[in-house]
Amino acid sequence: MSELLYAGKAKEMWSTDDPEVLRVVYLDQATAFNGKEKEHFAGKGHAAHAISNLVFHYLKDHGITTHLLETISPTEDLVKKCEMVPLEFVTRNVVAGHFASRYGLDEGADLKPAVEETFYKSDPLDDPFINASSANALGIATFAEQEQMWAMCREINELLKALFEKAGMKLVDFKLEFGKLPDGTIILADEFSPDNCRLWDLKTNAHMDKDVFRRQLADLTETYDRVLARIQTALEEK
Amino acid sequence: MSELLYAGKAKEMWSTDDPEVLRVVYLDQATAFNGKEKEHFAGKGHAAHAISNLVFHYLKDHGITTHLLETISPTEDLVKKCEMVPLEFVTRNVVAGHFASRYGLDEGADLKPAVEETFYKSDPLDDPFINASSANALGIATFAEQEQMWAMCREINELLKALFEKAGMKLVDFKLEFGKLPDGTIILADEFSPDNCRLWDLKTNAHMDKDVFRRQLADLTETYDRVLARIQTALEEK
Repeated sequence: MSELLYAGKAKEMWSTDDPEVLRVVYLDQATAFNGKEKEHFAGKGHAAHAISNLVFHYLKDHGITTHLLETISPTEDLVKKCEMVPLEFVTRNVVAGHFASRYGLDEGADLKPAVEETFYKSDPLDDPFINASSANALGIATFAEQEQMWAMCREINELLKALFEKAGMKLVDFKLEFGKLPDGTIILADEFSPDNCRLWDLKTNAHMDKDVFRRQLADLTETYDRVLARIQTALEEK
Repeated sequence: MSELLYAGKAKEMWSTDDPEVLRVVYLDQATAFNGKEKEHFAGKGHAAHAISNLVFHYLKDHGITTHLLETISPTEDLVKKCEMVPLEFVTRNVVAGHFASRYGLDEGADLKPAVEETFYKSDPLDDPFINASSANALGIATFAEQEQMWAMCREINELLKALFEKAGMKLVDFKLEFGKLPDGTIILADEFSPDNCRLWDLKTNAHMDKDVFRRQLADLTETYDRVLARIQTALEEK
C-alpha cells in the first residue's frame, strides 16, 4: 500500500512497501511567493525531475552522498527515507532576488566568499530567515551539524558552478535540503532544479529558472527543457 | 564650535573642539517600531543616561573598553570619536518580542546558549536581520571582527546578568553597538539603557523596559527611574 506522506509545492512523497524507501513524484506545477501564486505547467514536473536527477547523479559521481536510490518513471524516484532537517541552506554566488532588496543592493554583483543563509522551513511562519545561533538554541540543528551541512554545500557549490559554466549558465544562487539517516549520517535530500536555484545565461544574463514564472518572463516548461538540454550536452562533453 | 553630527531616535551626537571627542545628548523621547511611533517623556533622557552611565562604568571597572570619557551634565557625555560598525549585536537570554513571533514561540523560555543576532543598521532598509556570512561578504565587518565583538558581548552578558539579577531583574535581551578607533581597536560604543534591552522583574516578570511604551503598559520615565534606583542599590551593595 502506498500512502501520501507529504504534499509539497512541487512534489509529493509516498510510502512504499519498504519502510526505508519513499517514492517521490514531481508535479506539473509551480508556486511563487511562498505558495501564494500557483500555476499548472504541462511537462514541468518531467523537466524538473530530469534536471534534478542529472545533478544528483553528477554529485554522487563526485562523492556527495544523496538520498537518491532509483528512477522509476519520468516523474518518479525512489529515495532513502530520512529525517529531514527543517532548514533551507541557501548559497549565493551573485546578488539577486530577496537578498538584493533586503540589503538595498543591485542584482548582479559577485559575492566572494559566497553568502550562506539558512531559512527555517515552516509554512505557518513563512519560512523565516534564521541564523546558526538560533537554529542551535531552538534545537533545529546543532552548530556541528550545521557546519557539516555547510561543508557539503561548499563542495556542491564548486562542483555545480563548474557544471553550469560548462552548460553556458551562471549559478547565481541555490537552495539545498538535508536529511539524517537513523545512524546520524547527514545526506543531501530534496532536489536540485530551477525551482530552487537561479541560473543566468552566461552571455545574455537571461533568467533560466523559476524567476521566469515569478516575473512572467517566459514559458516555464520551455525554459526548464532548455536548461535540461544544456546540462545533458555539458555532461556528455566530459 | 559645536556641530550636530547625528540626530538619532533617542540621542544626538555633537562635535567638540577636540576632533577625537564627541558630545552625546540623551533626549526626552522614545520611538517604537523603527521610529514609526515617537513620543516625548519628560525626564526620560536623564534616566536613560544615568542607567547607561552606571552600566558603562561597571563594565569599564570589569575590563571592558568603552567610548565613555566623561559625564558633563545629567543628560550629556563626552565620548571617544570612533568609526561606528553599522551592526546591532543582539543577545537573547530569554524568548521575547520579535524573536518569539518570528519563530512561533511563546515568550519566556530560556535560551541556552544565548541566541546571538546581528541587524544591519540602515533606516531606509528598516534595520534588516543579517548573518555573519552576509556582513562579511558585503564588507560591513569581517568574520574576525564580528567574532571579536561577539566575544565582548558574551563577556558583557555574563557581567550584566549578574548585575541585573542582584537588582531584582532578569536580563531578557539587549542590543550593543561597537566602534573602531583609528588604530583598529574595537570598543563598546552607543549606550546600554532600557531603550535597548528587555528587563523583567525577577519575581513578577513585569516589564521594566521600552516594552512599557511599545505595549502601553506603564509610564516610561517612572519605569526607567525604578530601574535606575534598583541598579544604584545593587552597585552600592557590592
